[in-house]
Amino acid sequence: MSAAVMGCVTGFLTYETTKSVVVKSWSVGIINRVVQLVIITYFIGYVFLYEKAYQVSDTAIESSVITKVKGYGKLNNRVMDVADYIYPPQGTGMFCILTRVIVTDNQFQGRCAESDRKFECETDAHCTPHIGSVISNGIITGLCHKSLNESKGTCEIEGWCPAENDQVKIEPMVEFKGFTIFIKNSIRFPLFDVTRGNFPPTMNIKNCSNSEKDPFCPIFRVADVLKETQQDPTELAMKGGEIGINIQWQCNLDENIENCVPKYSFRRMDAPFEKNKVSTGYNFRYAKYYKTENGTEFRMLQKAYAVRFDVMVTGKAGKFSLVPTVINIVAALTSIGMGTVLCDIILLNCLNGADRYKAKKFEEVMEDQKMQPITPSPGSQRSLKPGMKSSGDSGAISLSISD
Amino acid sequence: MSAAVMGCVTGFLTYETTKSVVVKSWSVGIINRVVQLVIITYFIGYVFLYEKAYQVSDTAIESSVITKVKGYGKLNNRVMDVADYIYPPQGTGMFCILTRVIVTDNQFQGRCAESDRKFECETDAHCTPHIGSVISNGIITGLCHKSLNESKGTCEIEGWCPAENDQVKIEPMVEFKGFTIFIKNSIRFPLFDVTRGNFPPTMNIKNCSNSEKDPFCPIFRVADVLKETQQDPTELAMKGGEIGINIQWQCNLDENIENCVPKYSFRRMDAPFEKNKVSTGYNFRYAKYYKTENGTEFRMLQKAYAVRFDVMVTGKAGKFSLVPTVINIVAALTSIGMGTVLCDIILLNCLNGADRYKAKKFEEVMEDQKMQPITPSPGSQRSLKPGMKSSGDSGAISLSISD
Amino acid sequence: MSAAVMGCVTGFLTYETTKSVVVKSWSVGIINRVVQLVIITYFIGYVFLYEKAYQVSDTAIESSVITKVKGYGKLNNRVMDVADYIYPPQGTGMFCILTRVIVTDNQFQGRCAESDRKFECETDAHCTPHIGSVISNGIITGLCHKSLNESKGTCEIEGWCPAENDQVKIEPMVEFKGFTIFIKNSIRFPLFDVTRGNFPPTMNIKNCSNSEKDPFCPIFRVADVLKETQQDPTELAMKGGEIGINIQWQCNLDENIENCVPKYSFRRMDAPFEKNKVSTGYNFRYAKYYKTENGTEFRMLQKAYAVRFDVMVTGKAGKFSLVPTVINIVAALTSIGMGTVLCDIILLNCLNGADRYKAKKFEEVMEDQKMQPITPSPGSQRSLKPGMKSSGDSGAISLSISD
Repeated sequence: MSAAVMGCVTGFLTYETTKSVVVKSWSVGIINRVVQLVIITYFIGYVFLYEKAYQVSDTAIESSVITKVKGYGKLNNRVMDVADYIYPPQGTGMFCILTRVIVTDNQFQGRCAESDRKFECETDAHCTPHIGSVISNGIITGLCHKSLNESKGTCEIEGWCPAENDQVKIEPMVEFKGFTIFIKNSIRFPLFDVTRGNFPPTMNIKNCSNSEKDPFCPIFRVADVLKETQQDPTELAMKGGEIGINIQWQCNLDENIENCVPKYSFRRMDAPFEKNKVSTGYNFRYAKYYKTENGTEFRMLQKAYAVRFDVMVTGKAGKFSLVPTVINIVAALTSIGMGTVLCDIILLNCLNGADRYKAKKFEEVMEDQKMQPITPSPGSQRSLKPGMKSSGDSGAISLSISD
Repeated sequence: MSAAVMGCVTGFLTYETTKSVVVKSWSVGIINRVVQLVIITYFIGYVFLYEKAYQVSDTAIESSVITKVKGYGKLNNRVMDVADYIYPPQGTGMFCILTRVIVTDNQFQGRCAESDRKFECETDAHCTPHIGSVISNGIITGLCHKSLNESKGTCEIEGWCPAENDQVKIEPMVEFKGFTIFIKNSIRFPLFDVTRGNFPPTMNIKNCSNSEKDPFCPIFRVADVLKETQQDPTELAMKGGEIGINIQWQCNLDENIENCVPKYSFRRMDAPFEKNKVSTGYNFRYAKYYKTENGTEFRMLQKAYAVRFDVMVTGKAGKFSLVPTVINIVAALTSIGMGTVLCDIILLNCLNGADRYKAKKFEEVMEDQKMQPITPSPGSQRSLKPGMKSSGDSGAISLSISD
Repeated sequence: MSAAVMGCVTGFLTYETTKSVVVKSWSVGIINRVVQLVIITYFIGYVFLYEKAYQVSDTAIESSVITKVKGYGKLNNRVMDVADYIYPPQGTGMFCILTRVIVTDNQFQGRCAESDRKFECETDAHCTPHIGSVISNGIITGLCHKSLNESKGTCEIEGWCPAENDQVKIEPMVEFKGFTIFIKNSIRFPLFDVTRGNFPPTMNIKNCSNSEKDPFCPIFRVADVLKETQQDPTELAMKGGEIGINIQWQCNLDENIENCVPKYSFRRMDAPFEKNKVSTGYNFRYAKYYKTENGTEFRMLQKAYAVRFDVMVTGKAGKFSLVPTVINIVAALTSIGMGTVLCDIILLNCLNGADRYKAKKFEEVMEDQKMQPITPSPGSQRSLKPGMKSSGDSGAISLSISD
């Protein structure tokens, strides 16, 4: 029995390796080595060095952005400070600088005439079709609101009166070009538990301004940002728009962590709509509410054209890891082996003595010993007919040899 | 010496290919080709055509959303316009339409009775346990606040008085069904620097409404959105809730860029909590602040039930790239080679003449020439027993040599 | 002709398998099996079980967060409730608890003296350099504003007067430690259409508090959160800061969906800036606007130090899928095959009888029959010189057979 066990163990402890044919040929040898060189170059140069396929990467960046704008401007003869022109005020990654505000003051709930010429009327019948309109300044009652002795008027609305007239010409606050935006961005790559800030703790940020010379200064002049996005500040202030501030973190954690620094870029976010006839720019309406002495609420409606800034943080950190390395090395080695496919084709078809190579590479075995091959392929080995030489056999390859 | 160098070069310029056994058998040949066909079909059909594994893809979409709501409603006998019912007003991807507001007007700082019946008391002792409560309407002072000649009262609070009573019945603003939401979404795939807007610049968006007929219209009626999410508008307006508007960009950049268009879908975001007994819906409190003539601040507290809309933009763009193509082709070719594993098992175990195939496929070499194999596996070559033919040996294969 | 077709079919229905050399050697056999075992263990243990490479994963989690804070505090002798200290009020994933507010009341548009000592002046000439300053409290007019009979003053500003003095000492609202934050988070994995809430519908959340004992309670005491982030509540309330609440969903959808539960973690977001001398903490300015009886607008400026909470939801769901499974199994099998590379090196170089193994593994074929190998590699087969034994030939390997 111990012999059986021993045999079993011996049977298990075998090593199987492929039998290889070594072709000593300069032509195919050169081709083989060149193909291998190309594959190795590709993997080392592109896959490993350029794409860093040996790293595991983390793109699930956690980010916190705190912004603070500074500067003063004048709008409607009023000095505007941060508390006036920034909305929302809490300094998040997205904030608007109001650059032009159309104010409709002292609005009370009631009924009055629509301001828009689209709602012109002579009789109530002209107003009936407008009932349910969403572009009016209030609920269309269906009545025509005419002043005494006038033949034409506009439809009556129910809502906040007087109605807003947003066709008035207001000069924008052009001083916003000189405003500065301070961005405090801290990020974390959760996979590697790496935390970074967008400027070093030792940096003097009192008087700096981000520029090519000072790429890590977290303070940006609006004019510089607009210049990089090729926007005309005055037109932007007129119509409003959206500017994206992209902070990109590309970190190779196999290197010094100090090289893990942000890169800033800027672009007009609503660029795809620039050619549109309607709905260019950016504006929104909000109201400030007041009360009269006797407790009646009234409001100041504001149609604000604004430049919306959107700080977007993207990032990717890479660090050496075994799994992608092994998988890619395996892919590389397998690919090198794939070179033989090409070489085999050349060897077995294009070279002198291809038949001889074929005969050497392939051994044939038939389904049944008595069955003859229907189409004897020249140069193939006749393992079942020892001693018989096939035509086209070079005499060099054969398993049967008689001395 | 030149001969040695020459020899070295010749040694280097060799080409090594595996020696193969070609089995001319219909049965195993058919199996082999079928297995190969399945593998090729899988890779071409699923991996390459369906999963587009030949593309590099970018999911780090940069997106900008500007929204604008239009429409009028009536709440508490007041006409509500956009500036009244939209919060926050600046038209971002997340905004609330206030549908029901419980107003507690003219609140001043002071001390008064709690409004909630939970804080009922007869003596101060009943109020002591409530000190530190977070569900009261102010800081519980520990005193019992009773009207004259009443035996029961409620605990006294310090804070904004009078206390809010949120049990009053207020009809919701059902007109919100008719409101329209205009969504301006511009996206960018940073990897490919491709920028797209959610509607073409030439589109007439004045009077359109998004529907199956008009899938690229960026204006959505609230009623249509609610219909798709199977929500009852009146109940939603009563309790509040959250609706997600998903804009999906699936772009194949190997095709015409004009096919890179958005797909809209809608769903109730807080659906997992619909079955909850407590905390269904969505509401929040905020206040408007006023001043009396003599400068005392007072406020109007608002408990607002709202429908929160959340525009979420997701996307993926794919474009042909060499690296994934090569890696997947290698995987495909390797997998085809894997087919031989299955065929080998069949060939060497299940077919007639398996022993013969075995003998042909495997050549055996022992550790030491004098050592005998413990368990001679039938059909294996007896390289150590020159001249002796094993059973099953076809006579064609042998390593036995007699000089 | 049918014979030709038949031949073609027969030629197609062949099966090609590599010819193998089976080495019956304990030493190389053991090495072979050990290497294979290591590779298999690595793939099964690490790649498949730990990394779950057999799953397709979805990290594009859709998430909705609704928050609600409760509690009362006292600031500047006023009771603060949620409507007072939460900004923005609408209960999104990002909200601020105002902990210290520097109020500058009754500001009107006009001209007045700067409050900051940096703008001290004796003559107008001292103020000229400050024109255009962004750190003043208004637009520097260039005049020196002096009280009567005083030799020194500060530069005049145009803007909201009186100027803010943010050096006043205000005690923070320390009661915020006792506030509770209720977080309602519903998520969805779009790839698998799986929707989950952060607490089960049947849970009684009236009086719970998230802790180790009760990990699914969605109510968090601020003090507990700060404790986990190792922050001093009083200092945080003084200077402001940002706390990240991370909700992590790691879901294995091959298991019971009930195991797909959130994991909460907390950290100070602006930690990278803690060592900075300037710009630590978090504050922002906003204003409340009022009107006098005669319609003049005035405001109450607030510089608010706040603790900003940021609920971040990350997640990953995995589910079995064929593609990654097949690709990884192929990688595994290929890697097992790669073991032969190592074993071949040992076999052909380090073992006794390496020459014999070499001779067995490699068959040589020359470019041309008449051309002799320049450097006969010992042990290689001389297929072109039948019957001639090379030195080092063990006598066991040969292709010559004599019956």
